[in-house]
Amino acid sequence: MTYQLHYWPSIPGRGEFVRLALEAAGASYVDVARGDEQRGMGVPAMQRLLAGPDLARPPFACPFLVDGKRVIGQTAAILLYLGPRLDLVAKSEADRLWTHQIQLTIADAVVEAHDTHHPVGSGLYYEDQKKEALRRAEDFRKARLPKFMGWFETVLERNTRNDRAAIPHLVGGRLSYADLSLFQLVDGLRYAFPKATGRVLKKAPRVAALHAGVAGHRKLAAYFASERRLAFNEEGIFRRYRELDA
Amino acid sequence: MTYQLHYWPSIPGRGEFVRLALEAAGASYVDVARGDEQRGMGVPAMQRLLAGPDLARPPFACPFLVDGKRVIGQTAAILLYLGPRLDLVAKSEADRLWTHQIQLTIADAVVEAHDTHHPVGSGLYYEDQKKEALRRAEDFRKARLPKFMGWFETVLERNTRNDRAAIPHLVGGRLSYADLSLFQLVDGLRYAFPKATGRVLKKAPRVAALHAGVAGHRKLAAYFASERRLAFNEEGIFRRYRELDA
Repeated sequence: MTYQLHYWPSIPGRGEFVRLALEAAGASYVDVARGDEQRGMGVPAMQRLLAGPDLARPPFACPFLVDGKRVIGQTAAILLYLGPRLDLVAKSEADRLWTHQIQLTIADAVVEAHDTHHPVGSGLYYEDQKKEALRRAEDFRKARLPKFMGWFETVLERNTRNDRAAIPHLVGGRLSYADLSLFQLVDGLRYAFPKATGRVLKKAPRVAALHAGVAGHRKLAAYFASERRLAFNEEGIFRRYRELDA
Repeated sequence: MTYQLHYWPSIPGRGEFVRLALEAAGASYVDVARGDEQRGMGVPAMQRLLAGPDLARPPFACPFLVDGKRVIGQTAAILLYLGPRLDLVAKSEADRLWTHQIQLTIADAVVEAHDTHHPVGSGLYYEDQKKEALRRAEDFRKARLPKFMGWFETVLERNTRNDRAAIPHLVGGRLSYADLSLFQLVDGLRYAFPKATGRVLKKAPRVAALHAGVAGHRKLAAYFASERRLAFNEEGIFRRYRELDA
């Protein structure tokens, strides 16, 4: 079964959290909005599902996943669905819920990282909210970024399965979709706030080790070297505006 | 089994989304941080779990739920866990995931409603970010509030089980935790933005009917009349600052 992933074609954004799970598992998928419009793909195909009258259960926004008749929106819900199917989550209900709880906290951090450059409104240009962005980014760097990373570090530290592991994992002794998402969050933060993130990671060595470990994952390393991996840029969630870092 | 709910004692906040599920189901629970410190409850009991060294899987923030040895954070994850146990979600995997997807979109709306009065930082006073709040609230009223409510209206409209129902439901023909959370979101928005929300609800009659239906739920009506229901106030997520409504 080939999954369909629907997301904006020019940014990694939230779609990347899903893409990493699909790639790490070697799953068969089509990145619909990056496909050829002549062949019924591209952004119009995505918009048709998002804004059209056809779906009984329409997603609020992209990314969304199509699996046969199922259409699933919300990044964390997509990963909740894919986790067992891609063998990227443990088997027990307790472990699955804990993985999801971590994922939701990663999602909260993603919103806050985005809002550093869009504190007034996501529909407005950065240039029209730059003054507000300077204040919000300062609060993010000083208060929120250390708080989030400190919590992830604690989670890794208290996972006893990491005591003798070469690469730390958030849940138990195996790779989960939450590990992949934390990798992507850290990757984005290092792009957007190289100075602030560098400082914070010095105090979160396990988070830094997880990031390095995921980067070295065999299938993902091949993916990162491919054209399928989109670079961070100033249209996405993680943007490098030098004035917002310090 | 008595559940323990941990949340700030003086605001409805995110804890209320969990409380509504527990109350609607008539579940036995203790509101720990609102209990007596002399008897080992109160805010210190909550802080001990949040900030202490004891938990292998500590929540990032409150609300969190304790069920025996399980400690579960993140409002949507708590409801994902409680849904089947309180009979507040349908049985099939597809319905459960759809209910959760809706819940995550409600959670997104809650963040944005909160950020209207705290666009710069949640650790700063409103008075220190009032100028930014005026701009963010305008964007919320004009763009985001109608978009969210329009989507909920579409979801209710496309649920064919609502065609002949006295009270509309988000998923299938029965009450789910997402219905309760949408009630709470609408209730909070009506408190914080009475003018803007009144306008939007005129174009979302099914959302308004769901809100009225949940308000009339037998067990919840008794709860709303009790001292257990906390009133909205200017310390919480939904705050009535007249200058932010229009």
